[in-house]
Amino acid sequence: MSQENSRPRNIMLTLAYDGTGYRGWQRQARGLTIQGLLEEALARLCGHPVTVHGSGRTDAGVHARAQVANFVTHSPRSTREIVGGGNALLPATVAITSAQEVGELFNARFSALGKTYCYDFLVSGVRDPLLLNRAWLVGPHLDWAAVGDSLRFLLGTKDFRAFRSSGGDEGSTVREIRKAYLEWRGPDLMRLTLAGSGFLRHMVRTIAGTLWLIGRARLAPADLQAIIDSGDRSRAGPVAPPGGLYLEEVHYRPWA
Amino acid sequence: MSQENSRPRNIMLTLAYDGTGYRGWQRQARGLTIQGLLEEALARLCGHPVTVHGSGRTDAGVHARAQVANFVTHSPRSTREIVGGGNALLPATVAITSAQEVGELFNARFSALGKTYCYDFLVSGVRDPLLLNRAWLVGPHLDWAAVGDSLRFLLGTKDFRAFRSSGGDEGSTVREIRKAYLEWRGPDLMRLTLAGSGFLRHMVRTIAGTLWLIGRARLAPADLQAIIDSGDRSRAGPVAPPGGLYLEEVHYRPWA
Repeated sequence: MSQENSRPRNIMLTLAYDGTGYRGWQRQARGLTIQGLLEEALARLCGHPVTVHGSGRTDAGVHARAQVANFVTHSPRSTREIVGGGNALLPATVAITSAQEVGELFNARFSALGKTYCYDFLVSGVRDPLLLNRAWLVGPHLDWAAVGDSLRFLLGTKDFRAFRSSGGDEGSTVREIRKAYLEWRGPDLMRLTLAGSGFLRHMVRTIAGTLWLIGRARLAPADLQAIIDSGDRSRAGPVAPPGGLYLEEVHYRPWA
Repeated sequence: MSQENSRPRNIMLTLAYDGTGYRGWQRQARGLTIQGLLEEALARLCGHPVTVHGSGRTDAGVHARAQVANFVTHSPRSTREIVGGGNALLPATVAITSAQEVGELFNARFSALGKTYCYDFLVSGVRDPLLLNRAWLVGPHLDWAAVGDSLRFLLGTKDFRAFRSSGGDEGSTVREIRKAYLEWRGPDLMRLTLAGSGFLRHMVRTIAGTLWLIGRARLAPADLQAIIDSGDRSRAGPVAPPGGLYLEEVHYRPWA
């Protein structure tokens, strides 16, 4: 593909994907990843190799409603062409939902001020084919009042190492959780929303798994505080399945 | 499988499915169908051949939140075992959500008093991977006030032959539509709900396609009345894609 080159532009993308068939965000030697597909599509579109910087990784099977990424291009393609042309080259399970030019210092990861994740629980005794790989089937009998009561212990700037999976290697395990709430999204769909400065590897899913133990009365709400204080991974709950998790939003300054 | 036989019981099932990978409800010589899978699973579970009577067919790619069916069994399996055992034998894209014993005269098709269908429109300029095969991408600029204004012309007992696909062979084309309304189910998801005595082949999808023309101002709201009066299929809109359509409920007398 031969095109006249223009000045380098830094393009910010928002992306949505169904993570079910993917090995996660991050490019790997083998297996389909969102970053890998995106870099291939944009390279074809722009006519030069492209490196895409995501706001962070999502694990295999995790979804995104608004992942954010940026890349630098010398192609004269308009942002409208990047959205339309990129989507034409991507599978239907991944979409570029918007593109805009941003300042050269913008980096989707380092410019992020925080993120919002949602975790969906299917509160039913029977699976729902329309929520397959989209929500965690936890049965009809959880004590959601107890779960809701526990959420206040998550709020604030704390060391969340008790909810970190080994293999996470982010340095400090201190993060700030700014919002934590539950809402019914349907007769049997309960959504947990967590917004914060950032999240450790498996942190949201491990919080979801710990809340599940509280909902089943195997832990009391106040145990959540004790688990955080202990920093002991073995006292927290299981890592909830990836299909219930959605990267909902990445927060930036409005003028990013 | 050898089991003591008990008196024949008529079992009513409610079913949910993601129709994406299927050739529709009705058993066919080739291809996966919901009825075919269900009859195989129930035959294994009950130890005798089973014929499942659905409330009606759904086409290839159409979903159900609460399809209803019935079958007669001589097996002593409890309704709880039918739900649990049936689901263990069905793929994850089909679920038996409940089972109950009903009177011998109950027939899912002939006892039905009516049905409710939903049709989901994705009101956006960009596809949504999480709604792939779940909603019809119609763009951001439809005139929903005009669409809403037109719905009153659907209400009542009328001849809906203008919305019937050829190949439908139901005899009378008179049906009663009892409810017709729109609601936003999310920032860009518009749901059409139609409840009525019954629906002709492709009728809901052809109504959805005609409403789409109204939303794009290629038809006026009152044209819907004129199309019904004309009985002329060529004046109605296209058949909307199957993935937006959901069989939401089948109505029976409470004591069925």
